[in-house]
Parts: sequence; structure tokens; C-alpha cells
Amino acid sequence: MTTSNPVFIEVTRAGFVESRHRGACAVVDADGQMVHAWGDVEALVYPRSALKPIQALPLIETGAADHYGLGDEEIALACASHNSEPFHVERVTAWLERVGLTVDDLECGVCEAISLDVTKAMSSAHEPFTRAHNNCSGKHTGFLSTALFMGEATKGYIGAHHPVQQRVTKTVEEMTGVSLSSAPCGSDGCGIPVFAFPLHALARGMARMMSKDLAASRKAAANRVMAAMVACPQCVAGTKRFDTRVMTACKGEVLVKGGAEGVHIAMIPAKGLGIALKVDDGTIRASEQAMGCILDGLGLLPEAARSELADLIEMPVRSTLGERVGEIRKGPGLMF
Amino acid sequence: MTTSNPVFIEVTRAGFVESRHRGACAVVDADGQMVHAWGDVEALVYPRSALKPIQALPLIETGAADHYGLGDEEIALACASHNSEPFHVERVTAWLERVGLTVDDLECGVCEAISLDVTKAMSSAHEPFTRAHNNCSGKHTGFLSTALFMGEATKGYIGAHHPVQQRVTKTVEEMTGVSLSSAPCGSDGCGIPVFAFPLHALARGMARMMSKDLAASRKAAANRVMAAMVACPQCVAGTKRFDTRVMTACKGEVLVKGGAEGVHIAMIPAKGLGIALKVDDGTIRASEQAMGCILDGLGLLPEAARSELADLIEMPVRSTLGERVGEIRKGPGLMF
Repeated sequence: MTTSNPVFIEVTRAGFVESRHRGACAVVDADGQMVHAWGDVEALVYPRSALKPIQALPLIETGAADHYGLGDEEIALACASHNSEPFHVERVTAWLERVGLTVDDLECGVCEAISLDVTKAMSSAHEPFTRAHNNCSGKHTGFLSTALFMGEATKGYIGAHHPVQQRVTKTVEEMTGVSLSSAPCGSDGCGIPVFAFPLHALARGMARMMSKDLAASRKAAANRVMAAMVACPQCVAGTKRFDTRVMTACKGEVLVKGGAEGVHIAMIPAKGLGIALKVDDGTIRASEQAMGCILDGLGLLPEAARSELADLIEMPVRSTLGERVGEIRKGPGLMF
Repeated sequence: MTTSNPVFIEVTRAGFVESRHRGACAVVDADGQMVHAWGDVEALVYPRSALKPIQALPLIETGAADHYGLGDEEIALACASHNSEPFHVERVTAWLERVGLTVDDLECGVCEAISLDVTKAMSSAHEPFTRAHNNCSGKHTGFLSTALFMGEATKGYIGAHHPVQQRVTKTVEEMTGVSLSSAPCGSDGCGIPVFAFPLHALARGMARMMSKDLAASRKAAANRVMAAMVACPQCVAGTKRFDTRVMTACKGEVLVKGGAEGVHIAMIPAKGLGIALKVDDGTIRASEQAMGCILDGLGLLPEAARSELADLIEMPVRSTLGERVGEIRKGPGLMF
């Protein structure tokens, strides 16, 4: 037996707890103060795609977004882990065209869609996946746009020493308050560098997106990123996805972004709160459900959204016959 | 912080541990003695599909298997969580025909294939999933065959009070040594009753499959089930699947069967060992990897199989570009 993080989510069958997911979560206010914490929030985590709202800031701050006339859809796609649905792929492809590039300039790999429905539709239509279908293709197109606008080489833009990644890393350091020069650094799923830093710093970075103390250009960029996510939740994830459903139902009151390996962030503009959680085992069923339970437990979901998102707070487990046989629900470690 | 099971599996990225999976595992010898244990092996678990080798015993003991001339393929399918590949579905359909029934008599539901490749192929061919595609369709056909042979109603065979399930429950009690009369009882994914009992009893039940002290008819049935799994590993799971790969590579020296929510069992005939593990969070990537690491750590994998199954002991994590960016490997809680 060893000590560990609290149980955030439990999976029941006929009332008996069958599986358990542990995790940690930090909630930081606009002044950078931690107002709630569960589990070890000092532990380093790779933020994965939950960092995308911050990674998108240089696209705006450099002036690239204005230069290329990018709207909410493109900015939202730059923050997205999208479903590879036709409208995602079409908009990314059109954006690449607008800046004079093609799908061949993308340096992310080719992979299956996050959405099984999309993967099935692609198989049904005998269509192959391309780099534009990669759920990170919007972020990569943002990187390419910035490089192009700054007169930097587009080739190699995913490398740690390329100015694009240097700018992103500096922005992450400024927003989280953490120096990344000696942080563990790996390669993210899409090939760009990913640095590990404390979970509470990820929450702090998200709270800082809403801070009044930001420099004017940073403040404007953060506002534009958040406005785009609110305006185009379908671009950020897609049909049936947690982030899209939450942002659609909450009408701007709650912004959320998930990442691989059980990381999830939220931003609550009206309260200036940044939230970051990581489920130890990296399971998305648990990180999404934990975010739903934490938003609900802290009273951050608008009343009208609560019933619409009821399954994101307590999710039925169904047999293949469609019968409700259990629940995925708040575990004993999530006390409010 | 709370106490918990040891970390069985860790997921690394650039050498830094990104995610952790905890679990428990019991190893029981032919005399029913626990020879190894990690974590809380007293905790109750739903055995899910890891129980199928025991659930298949009445099919043989009643005489139904002989009456209908079932061979290794059918017996292996009765123990299977198959991939819904064409040869699985064709054999189940042919078996149903042989006993005078059809796919409409199956009371499992319709669901996606475990294999994404199969789901894609079905979409590509515009073929719908049927109950025969349910990964449990072989087990259900075994249940139907037993009911038919015993002159019992085939309708309602998944109900807890139907003689088919009563026989299965009695067999499970005899093999595990646990009374299930007051055990938590839920509905399994395919609609049949599933009882929770201690993890060590699941290991004991598997060890008992190889015991010399079984009654002759039980011994014969257990031997026939194990022989069928060894003869037809492709029927038990399918292409690229853990159980099929392990049993194919180990040529009868190791039998394995996985279940939902992170349960996995193994049987080692030469040593009379039964193994049962459950990963707390129910993640299959962890339960399979943990079984690989435990079989390897206990020196139970034949040398020739070790290199063939290297990725089931240490699994590379790859980016969408195909680069190796991390590992899924044995965690600090698995000491041998």
C-alpha cells in the first residue's frame, strides 16, 4: 500500500464500486492564489493539449492573426483538439490556403480521429486521413501562420529551437510563472515539445488569462482566445465532445479544454478562476467526469446548463442491451 | 492522500512518468495456496469476461458439447471476448444453425467491435453489426446450446433464475470456494448476472482448473476448455489481441483471458498456477501490460515467446509521427 491522490471518480455496477480513478486538482483565483486543492498539486504534469489556449497567444500577439484576417473559427481551431469532422478539416485547409500553404506543410502526423463516428464515416466513404485531420491541425496551422508572418522558416516549426516554439515556451513561462529551462521535456503526440510543470502552475496560467494585470497586448490576445472558444465551441472539439457540450451549454460562463493523459483545464471569466486537473491514470472518461463534477461541486455551472450536462456529472453505464447497469460518478475524494 | 494499491504500470514520456496505474494481483498454486500477492487481493472484484473459462464448464459437463459435436473452435468461442472478425461471426452463426437456432435467439446486445480495424472494415463494407458480432456471442451460443440440450427454455437464458445461469453460478462457487448468495450482483455488459468476489478467489478458481483433486467430469471439462483455448487462440480474442498473441507465442505454456474494467487471469498448466489481477482504474492498456510484466517477472514466459511479446512487457508510446516518445512499462509496485 502506498499513499496516493484521492479518488476523484468511481465506476459502479449495481451500486458496487468496480473501478476508481485518482487525481489532483488546483483552483487558482485572479490574484494567483490557490483557493481549492485536491491531491498533490505540486506534482509535475505534462499539460498536453490542455495548454492550447496559452499556446495560441503568440499567433495573436505577433500580429499574424490580424495580418491574415483570422476570425473566431480559426482562433478556436488553434486551441482545438478537434474531431476531424468535415467542417474542421475544411476550415483548416482553407486557412492553410489563405496563408499560401498546403496540408504538406503541416508537420503533425496522420492519426485516427478522436471521434469513432468520424473514423467510421471516413471508412464508409473510403476516405483516407491526412495531416489536416490530425486533431492538432488547427494549432499547427497557427504555428505555420506565425512563422510565415514573422519571416521565419516554416520547415521545422515543431522543433524546440525554432522561434515559433521558443515564443510559445516563453509565453507559457510568463503565464504560469515557471521557468522551463530545466523542466522535463518530451515530445507531444503531434511532435512539438511538451514541458512538465506543477499542476497548480497550469491552473495559475489559466487564471492569468483573465488577469487585469496583463500587459495590454497579452490581455487583448487572451481575450480574443477566450472569445473565440466561446463563439465557436464546435471548432474546439466537435459533435458530442465534452468541451463543446460544456461551452455550448454554459454560454461563455465556463471555458474548458481537455488534453491527453487525463489533463483538463477550465476558465471561469466572471470569477477569474483557473482550474487544472490531472487524473493519475490518464483516462479521459475520468478526467472529463472529474471536471464535470468539480464545476458542479463548486457551483460554477449555470443552472440551465446543469440539466443539459447531467450525464457529465453522473454518467450512466449501459450494457450492450442499453440497460442502465451502473454509473460513472463523483468519488469520495472530491469533497466540496 | 489515502492508502492504495501499488503502482503496477507507469506511462513515461522522455523518461518522466506521466501516468500511473495501480492494481492488485494474486497468484495461487494448485493446492489453493497464495504464493504471490500485490495490493489488496481480498477486495471484491467483478471478474467480468476473465471468468469465461469457468463459465464454459457446464457446456461440457452437461453433455451438451458432445451431443452437438462441438470442437475446439466452438469451446474456445464459448470462452471468448472475440474481435467480431468474419471468422468469429461465421463460426458462431454456423454453431447456432447446427443446434437449430438463429442470431435472433441470442440475448446479448449489439455493440461495436473491440477491434477498431473490424469496426472500420464493417463501415467500409456498409455492413451492420448484429448480435452475432457481440464479443460475447460465443459464450451466449454455449448458454443456448446447454439450455436446449437440457430441455430448458432458450428464451430468458440470461436471467439470474434461469437454470443456465444457476448452473454457471454453482460452478463458479465450486471453483472459487466462495458463496455468492449474498455477493454484490450486477448485470454484465452482455446482460448476464455478474457477481463480485475476492480477487484471490478468482486466482484460486483458475488454479483449480488444473487441480488433480477435481471430480472426473469436472477435470475432463476443465481440460477440454484449456485445450480448446490453446488450440484456437485466434477464436478466444483475435488479430493483434493480447490474449491471442500470448497464447499463440507460448504454445500451451500460458493461458490468458482478459475482462472489462482491467481484470485479467492466467493459467500456467505446468506449474498449476492461477493468476488474477485487477487494475483499479479499469484500463485495458494497464491490465494487459501488467499481465505481461507479471508473467515475465515470475519467469513464466517461454524464452522464445519473450522476444515475440517484448512490447507486451514494455510498450513504446509513439507520437502521430511514429517516433518513440515514451514507454508503458512495469511500475515500482511490481517487485519480484
